[in-house]
Amino acid sequence: MDTRRLEAFSDGVIAIIITIMVLELKVPHEASLQALRPLLPGFLTYILSYIYIGIYWNNHHHLLQATQQVSGGILWANLYLLFWLSLIPFVTGWMGENHFEPGPTALYGVVLLMAGAAYTLLQRAIVARHGRDSILKKAIGADLKGNLSLVLYLVAIAFSYFSVWIATASYVATALMWLVPDRRIERALAGRPSPEGGPHGG
Amino acid sequence: MDTRRLEAFSDGVIAIIITIMVLELKVPHEASLQALRPLLPGFLTYILSYIYIGIYWNNHHHLLQATQQVSGGILWANLYLLFWLSLIPFVTGWMGENHFEPGPTALYGVVLLMAGAAYTLLQRAIVARHGRDSILKKAIGADLKGNLSLVLYLVAIAFSYFSVWIATASYVATALMWLVPDRRIERALAGRPSPEGGPHGG
Amino acid sequence: MDTRRLEAFSDGVIAIIITIMVLELKVPHEASLQALRPLLPGFLTYILSYIYIGIYWNNHHHLLQATQQVSGGILWANLYLLFWLSLIPFVTGWMGENHFEPGPTALYGVVLLMAGAAYTLLQRAIVARHGRDSILKKAIGADLKGNLSLVLYLVAIAFSYFSVWIATASYVATALMWLVPDRRIERALAGRPSPEGGPHGG
Amino acid sequence: MDTRRLEAFSDGVIAIIITIMVLELKVPHEASLQALRPLLPGFLTYILSYIYIGIYWNNHHHLLQATQQVSGGILWANLYLLFWLSLIPFVTGWMGENHFEPGPTALYGVVLLMAGAAYTLLQRAIVARHGRDSILKKAIGADLKGNLSLVLYLVAIAFSYFSVWIATASYVATALMWLVPDRRIERALAGRPSPEGGPHGG
Repeated sequence: MDTRRLEAFSDGVIAIIITIMVLELKVPHEASLQALRPLLPGFLTYILSYIYIGIYWNNHHHLLQATQQVSGGILWANLYLLFWLSLIPFVTGWMGENHFEPGPTALYGVVLLMAGAAYTLLQRAIVARHGRDSILKKAIGADLKGNLSLVLYLVAIAFSYFSVWIATASYVATALMWLVPDRRIERALAGRPSPEGGPHGG
Repeated sequence: MDTRRLEAFSDGVIAIIITIMVLELKVPHEASLQALRPLLPGFLTYILSYIYIGIYWNNHHHLLQATQQVSGGILWANLYLLFWLSLIPFVTGWMGENHFEPGPTALYGVVLLMAGAAYTLLQRAIVARHGRDSILKKAIGADLKGNLSLVLYLVAIAFSYFSVWIATASYVATALMWLVPDRRIERALAGRPSPEGGPHGG
Repeated sequence: MDTRRLEAFSDGVIAIIITIMVLELKVPHEASLQALRPLLPGFLTYILSYIYIGIYWNNHHHLLQATQQVSGGILWANLYLLFWLSLIPFVTGWMGENHFEPGPTALYGVVLLMAGAAYTLLQRAIVARHGRDSILKKAIGADLKGNLSLVLYLVAIAFSYFSVWIATASYVATALMWLVPDRRIERALAGRPSPEGGPHGG
Repeated sequence: MDTRRLEAFSDGVIAIIITIMVLELKVPHEASLQALRPLLPGFLTYILSYIYIGIYWNNHHHLLQATQQVSGGILWANLYLLFWLSLIPFVTGWMGENHFEPGPTALYGVVLLMAGAAYTLLQRAIVARHGRDSILKKAIGADLKGNLSLVLYLVAIAFSYFSVWIATASYVATALMWLVPDRRIERALAGRPSPEGGPHGG
């Protein structure tokens, strides 16, 4: 079983997720630019979520390039990741409509946390299939970046009820940390193992 | 005619179905976590339908891997399956909004039953094209699992008006039965025929 | 320039069109099966449009298999066809919601007519690129079936204001005429030219 | 890293964008043809945006055909372009609903301007990866057509508050300028460099 159709299906789902998020930005009925002002928080949230989905797509792309075999477990780990990603438009819409209030801000973090954990699970399922001595295993290493993200999401969720700004800053900081493209797998494929972590998706 | 474009088109439709279901979860206008409570049945139904679509995608993936030739009949049997799958977001939304009442619960089962029967039809169209001695025919065998699913859907539809819980439990049980990935085709491709049934999706 | 990406893009657009049509079937708020009755015309229209889109996808699939080269003109002829197909969800929703009244019934035919003409145009653009002696040209021949469809659409549009039933029957008859898969290109590829017409999409 | 998955993902996103725009054309509740009249501006805007998205897809298709290697920078430049394209359904809906009023007309131009600039950026990222002496660099040349488009968008934005008609005419003129398929890359691939500009997307 090859990775081609798994990639194609994941690409399809991720492409739809990234595009239907924009449907949460409801077209205003008035024609004045002032009518756009209430949409600003929704627009900023859209940008943040777009970047997160972009990061996941990028890292997923790299991860599957290092994958040669697909098992049933990998198929379901991938579907489990896509499940959490599919909830991002919902939490994006809720956070955008409610101007960064505690509840939506915390739930946004919960979905990011679950998606991050699902990515780690997918990574492990692929490593388990390919063996602990594989290029992939070496490339991922201790996955410091992935684990740090999970901690940052937990911090953001906890802070949602005290300071929405710290929570939001955590989400932005995590995204920025991942925006730098992860070259570990590329490096490992080229024969240079890297000790610092794994292509954990955000 | 090869299977590549049939796969690509089916993947596209299934990816869209699985993703637009989430649009039935309407973003609440209030920011409190209590505002999410009315969405809980819809969310649980979304999970159930997501798993069903995931099972269909998985089994469809396996089925087409054992397919070498595509005929007009196979194209239409495939479109007929996708037709019933395309109605899953509708019945998911209806069941989710109406907290498992008899009507929506029964209709959910009707759509699953029709999709299951369509999958059996697609399977037969592919076997007819490849011959009764093909690997695929051996892999599917008597298709006990597929036929049992159809019976469980019928039970669930009948019970919808007596006990919604039994009906719902039937849907969950059928999904769990299929969550275990079907290794019969993989086994058959590797030369080990299996006597127990077919990769019926549902 | 090869046909691969043209196929992939067309498949994507057609997959989305066929799937978003179901969004026009609004989930009723009541749980009784009686609440589904007002949706019946919409559901029947959905089935009709689903079959039309399926026919287009099937014929498009065959047409591109006989295509080796893609020019700018072919790309735009293809986009022009997809434009008219993209309006099918709109006219389907309108006809479905208005129980086969004259206006929506006529407009449904106008969109089918334009899509049919666009398919003929695409066919000609591909033939022009491949030469009048190509397999494709022979396969299409006089395109009786395609031209008959255009006539049937015109009849249906004209009858919309006298008898919606005759108009609707014309749409159903045209779809049935195409449901029989078009084997002319397959036959021509296998070396047997056919005199009867072309894989005109519906 | 090859361009295949980048193409597939971009195709998916562009296919969805071009198709969900039609969802902004709300199905009227009345059955008379007069009920369609208020939809006319929205329909015209839909046509314009459809052509723009078609131009981007065409040019993107050509650009990636001249691309052999994909870097992290190219992936993000591509996502940045898709971000601006994803906002086209929103501005199309707003302009269509508000009959070409100044605010929506200007914002439409802003999104086109940003998308055009993003396309230039993507082009530069690809040229940077392939070297200044590459076929692509020669094909793009001074990119007069691309730069002229950016100027025309700026003109349109500025005129939105004085004459919506001049602004709209600028959008239509720019689209027409690009509708003629760009043969420079094709020519360059065939060994004939062209001095006039680049496949800037609209």
